[in-house]
Amino acid sequence: MDGERVARVWLSGVGEPGDVGVWRLVEKVGAVEAMAAVQRGRVPREVGVTEKRLAGLRMRAGAFDLEGALFICAQFGGRVLVPGDAEWPTTLGHLGEAAPLLLWVRGRADLRAVCLRSVAIVGARAATPYGTRVAADLGAELADRGWTVVSGGALGVDGAAHRGALAADGTTVAVLASGVDVAYPPRHEAMFDEIAATGLLVSEWPPTAHPTRPRFLVRNRVIAALTKGTVVVEADLRSGALNTARHARDLGRHLMAVPGPVTSLMSRGCHDLLRAAPPHTRLVTCAEDVIEEVGAIGEGLDRPDGRPVLPRDHLDPDSRAVLEAVPATPRGAPAEAIAAAASVDLPTTRSRLALLAATGFVDRTRTGWRLRTPHTPPTPDP
Amino acid sequence: MDGERVARVWLSGVGEPGDVGVWRLVEKVGAVEAMAAVQRGRVPREVGVTEKRLAGLRMRAGAFDLEGALFICAQFGGRVLVPGDAEWPTTLGHLGEAAPLLLWVRGRADLRAVCLRSVAIVGARAATPYGTRVAADLGAELADRGWTVVSGGALGVDGAAHRGALAADGTTVAVLASGVDVAYPPRHEAMFDEIAATGLLVSEWPPTAHPTRPRFLVRNRVIAALTKGTVVVEADLRSGALNTARHARDLGRHLMAVPGPVTSLMSRGCHDLLRAAPPHTRLVTCAEDVIEEVGAIGEGLDRPDGRPVLPRDHLDPDSRAVLEAVPATPRGAPAEAIAAAASVDLPTTRSRLALLAATGFVDRTRTGWRLRTPHTPPTPDP
Repeated sequence: MDGERVARVWLSGVGEPGDVGVWRLVEKVGAVEAMAAVQRGRVPREVGVTEKRLAGLRMRAGAFDLEGALFICAQFGGRVLVPGDAEWPTTLGHLGEAAPLLLWVRGRADLRAVCLRSVAIVGARAATPYGTRVAADLGAELADRGWTVVSGGALGVDGAAHRGALAADGTTVAVLASGVDVAYPPRHEAMFDEIAATGLLVSEWPPTAHPTRPRFLVRNRVIAALTKGTVVVEADLRSGALNTARHARDLGRHLMAVPGPVTSLMSRGCHDLLRAAPPHTRLVTCAEDVIEEVGAIGEGLDRPDGRPVLPRDHLDPDSRAVLEAVPATPRGAPAEAIAAAASVDLPTTRSRLALLAATGFVDRTRTGWRLRTPHTPPTPDP
Repeated sequence: MDGERVARVWLSGVGEPGDVGVWRLVEKVGAVEAMAAVQRGRVPREVGVTEKRLAGLRMRAGAFDLEGALFICAQFGGRVLVPGDAEWPTTLGHLGEAAPLLLWVRGRADLRAVCLRSVAIVGARAATPYGTRVAADLGAELADRGWTVVSGGALGVDGAAHRGALAADGTTVAVLASGVDVAYPPRHEAMFDEIAATGLLVSEWPPTAHPTRPRFLVRNRVIAALTKGTVVVEADLRSGALNTARHARDLGRHLMAVPGPVTSLMSRGCHDLLRAAPPHTRLVTCAEDVIEEVGAIGEGLDRPDGRPVLPRDHLDPDSRAVLEAVPATPRGAPAEAIAAAASVDLPTTRSRLALLAATGFVDRTRTGWRLRTPHTPPTPDP
């Protein structure tokens, strides 16, 4: 692991993600020198790290076990992404001084590729049966149309959205406020394992880190920044989902909300968003509405000629093998047949098909996957 | 009854309300001469009444019993309003060539006065329990704040809105597609009697006329034109309520819709309105939201100094007697006490209090009515 990456791991373990002072320090002198500066106890005054904050960082430095974190990450097959990596989502740069220094990632998918065509579905933990039903339907239908479902892995709306995407054999990304090896909430342990098998668990916090209330809020900006838009399914007036919504709006992302009964407290946050002053939150009732909003023409997501957004030789070997095995017939072939033909295991095949769909190489059909031919509409009815 | 009024009764009984040709003819030569022209079978070519249409009018002339209609109207204590009458709502002029020639009115309230501060609540006949609950709540809460509830008298949302207003001792106006003496739907006969006792039944069709499908649609423009804004509570995609909504939008009235579960077919029309291109339909969840929309500052409804919109000497004798009996105390007095003090019967007192509230002379309190003093907020929490 290169020195820059190690230094970022150290800085993000010692500092707290979202700390603008540390970000400015890295921006000014680079991560390696920033680490050394913190260790020395002297940083350029103009980055805005106070003496007190610096003392705090140095105290935490004693407690942070860098080698231990990297060892645990290697054990569960995780990886560390930093800006400049091919898999680093460039959209995180829109966060400016609040951009993450690094991401810990667990799972088979390519983060940047699957987020090219992704939507965040967020909402209340104390969701009603209506909210979880709508979230699961949206998750499944968006996955069906080749969209990646990003959420926060929480109980209620988040979990329902992830499960909907999983049920549709789609790709889903859980952005956590804990280490990607920590099952929080514990009830979601099996779901997180399932997500890692085809999609991704993502976090700014090192392995074994536990979530805190402020961390959930800091995490939300990453959900908003990774995606083309955020859908709030249910939210009471003080829901954290409204914080994600604010980030989406501030970042110029599409902000959408699902209406509900005006008699339901859990829809009040959504209705407030929909009643707020411009820029308007878009009312959405189904996946089609969401795609109409985030996939608007002129978005630069699909090339006008319907060609893939990545050159074929940028694909990894597994993706190329899977792509070779996808038929051009209108009905396509199921993932199982493609996996067999490509000699690639089924979970890997599924995650690569999602990547190939997100980047415009293949399309879903009712029964499987087919090659996309130029000038084919990008997302036909599955 | 003056000749002009009689001629309008004849023309509206012989023609069909909403007929632009007849309206143009009246506009051009006056109602008396228009009637004579139809009877003669010769009308100026430029008004656009075809030979065939003229023949149709003359055929219907033989079947229309003008004296009979006026006799029945007198029996149930109704009246005929025409443009220029003090009670004629001038906002109907916004309909241009589609404006009514006259209105048949049954009930104690003053149409123009009660419509000064009025909102239409419309929606599906096949409303869900959610829709009728929301309509009734909105009707009651708007009535509580001194707003008149206008609707179409139909089953479902309309009926619930009227009943909500009645339950709150408020004023409600049913604009019918039948004669104001015809109980359609029959199930609403008792409700119509109750409406007439304190509010109004209004129609463009003469007594005994029965409703037809086209008449419901023609009627809708009057609902939209009489009110400051229209709230659609529930509507499927082909609901007549969306026709009223279109009229409201075309007339530059405030258009509002209540959201509901995205899983409910009966909320689809509302969600479509809320998703439509600008001018935007406003999402409303309660009476407060509605009043915020229709009672916006700068609407010209309330004078900035909080004074009444009508001079005191324009009031009818009953209204003046009731006004004399309203106390200036903060808690006010209940309608029963005011009726006794004014020596006016209770239903009349109630309808006059609604008029006085609409015109800015009195305000509702928790327990009754009080004089509005200049600079008092116009609609305090009841």
